[in-house]
Amino acid sequence: MTAIKAYAASSKDADLKSLDIKRRDVKKDDVKIDILYCGVCHSDLHQVRNDWKNSQYPVVPGHEIIGKVLEVGDNVSDFKQGDLVGVGCMVDSCQTCSSCKDDLEQFCENGATMTYNSKDKHLGGHTFGGYSESIVVDKEFILTIPENLDAKAAAPLLCAGITTYSPLAHWGVKEGDKVGVIGLGGLGHMGIKFAHAMGAHTVMITTSPDKSEDAKKLGADEVLISKNEDEMKKHAGSFDFLLNTIPVGHDMNPYVNLLKRDATMVIVGAVEPLDPLHGGSLIMGRKSIAGSLIGGIRETQQMLDFCGEHNVVCDIEMIDIQNINEAYDRLQKSDVKYRFVIDMKSLKDS
Amino acid sequence: MTAIKAYAASSKDADLKSLDIKRRDVKKDDVKIDILYCGVCHSDLHQVRNDWKNSQYPVVPGHEIIGKVLEVGDNVSDFKQGDLVGVGCMVDSCQTCSSCKDDLEQFCENGATMTYNSKDKHLGGHTFGGYSESIVVDKEFILTIPENLDAKAAAPLLCAGITTYSPLAHWGVKEGDKVGVIGLGGLGHMGIKFAHAMGAHTVMITTSPDKSEDAKKLGADEVLISKNEDEMKKHAGSFDFLLNTIPVGHDMNPYVNLLKRDATMVIVGAVEPLDPLHGGSLIMGRKSIAGSLIGGIRETQQMLDFCGEHNVVCDIEMIDIQNINEAYDRLQKSDVKYRFVIDMKSLKDS
Repeated sequence: MTAIKAYAASSKDADLKSLDIKRRDVKKDDVKIDILYCGVCHSDLHQVRNDWKNSQYPVVPGHEIIGKVLEVGDNVSDFKQGDLVGVGCMVDSCQTCSSCKDDLEQFCENGATMTYNSKDKHLGGHTFGGYSESIVVDKEFILTIPENLDAKAAAPLLCAGITTYSPLAHWGVKEGDKVGVIGLGGLGHMGIKFAHAMGAHTVMITTSPDKSEDAKKLGADEVLISKNEDEMKKHAGSFDFLLNTIPVGHDMNPYVNLLKRDATMVIVGAVEPLDPLHGGSLIMGRKSIAGSLIGGIRETQQMLDFCGEHNVVCDIEMIDIQNINEAYDRLQKSDVKYRFVIDMKSLKDS
Repeated sequence: MTAIKAYAASSKDADLKSLDIKRRDVKKDDVKIDILYCGVCHSDLHQVRNDWKNSQYPVVPGHEIIGKVLEVGDNVSDFKQGDLVGVGCMVDSCQTCSSCKDDLEQFCENGATMTYNSKDKHLGGHTFGGYSESIVVDKEFILTIPENLDAKAAAPLLCAGITTYSPLAHWGVKEGDKVGVIGLGGLGHMGIKFAHAMGAHTVMITTSPDKSEDAKKLGADEVLISKNEDEMKKHAGSFDFLLNTIPVGHDMNPYVNLLKRDATMVIVGAVEPLDPLHGGSLIMGRKSIAGSLIGGIRETQQMLDFCGEHNVVCDIEMIDIQNINEAYDRLQKSDVKYRFVIDMKSLKDS
């Protein structure tokens, strides 16, 4: 075991502060990574504040990790010292259940080990995330970052990226489809970039007219203001696919009305009760509502390769770890375009 | 035009009574049918009582029509006098929109002509349904009833049958799948029969333990009492498909928890607001909720052929037209196993 520096919350209401944590020594299947950058996800904030009532303190958040390989175990041949790699939301899973065999470790029937706040099989206690100097992870959960991407801006691909790429890919979005991305935040801005890169006619659907200009810069072909009933009527029944990134409960009926016959709206943001849906809005047109959770490791690598090919990264604002509490306050007010990324040099130098 | 006998409601609160209506003369594409039997659908009751706020009086209900061909137009070659035929929920559609071209006339973008309470293109006013002596319908909306089926018991196939067959077929239910049918009424009893005939392991899901015996007689392999939390837990994450026939708003969350990863629950009954759904119940396991509405004409014929092959008909109770008001009262109390069918001889003889 090695003691390393990290940033952690010691309780629900505490600010994040410097704390020493322990990492396991490298075992035969492990890769040890020197963390260069770590994205700040809204889940980090939820977990620190125990919004989901399952937080274990101290919480060391961070599951959008980019770094360089420091050391590999004897069984590791795909990675070597100096490689640019990433770690996302998961660091382990059973590898034997039907979900794992289908490359959908996020649905591991025995429970995937999440990057933080999960049971630590090796050291006991719970896992610690990427707001730290280094991390040791099983080789099956290490991702290769295409060298042509800006490494800092690639960090949020590991969560915000795969969360939006996966449903677009799984539901087969293709060139010429009319795709709506609902909500423009960390997830929504990646939804637009991916839908655009896949060749879809991409429509940003938002309540805020002042987001129009940004949405178009990100790749939206059109902006639909959901509060404008006439506009909503004009687009009724015209979408092949809707990616719903709204992070809170809301009325889905107006969006379902936008779908074509047999089309699907996928929820990726709202892990909470949604307002009453009218059965008729699904029945008329055989429409579907579905949910989607990050993506499996194989698909995450496919997403990163797609990003390398299409030069897709996130729009980010760099911060030092010492400013994380201020960043959380701004994140809660949606005052970021569109993702904070921590320069981990600030932790190492402190 | 010919005047014929029918049974109609003259206003929201009026009992159905005998009334003379007019039918058009047979045109070149038409088939005139002597109505032998007509099923009583819950929609008939809704429409008579103006529950959907769109009823046009007088309402002559009935869209589960079985009869013999009396006369055909010059362009009709697929049907001849004496053939046993059926007419379901639709009697016409534009035949040119993308839904019609995809054999999904129920979603006709220019509005299908429903068997009753729709605009009558030929005579003006609105269409009159099957609680009548005869009907004249475009040949494209005439269905062939397999001769080996009991014609009386085949009547409800035209609505209850296709409403449950279509989603099972569209979502590819196959031998060995574990399929749950939620709710045991007119729709649910057909859902069990079809799922069973398709070779699925069929589970009746109901709040009422006293429906168990009947469900098994209809073809259910198992009965799951949805109020029993332990039982529900035991079946969690195990269903390949759920057919939800509950006719009113309800909490879908406990049912969604029964679905396997990537599986779908289809709503066919609740044309009203549903209780708040938790986004997480769809996100965890990439599950879907969808809706389905009757079926297209081609698929309705496929369903009838399937019924002929597997000897599937409805469980019915025959009534005379003079007892329709009493039947409606019983229908509202779910006091029927499982569908009333009117012997139209009672109208003709009156």
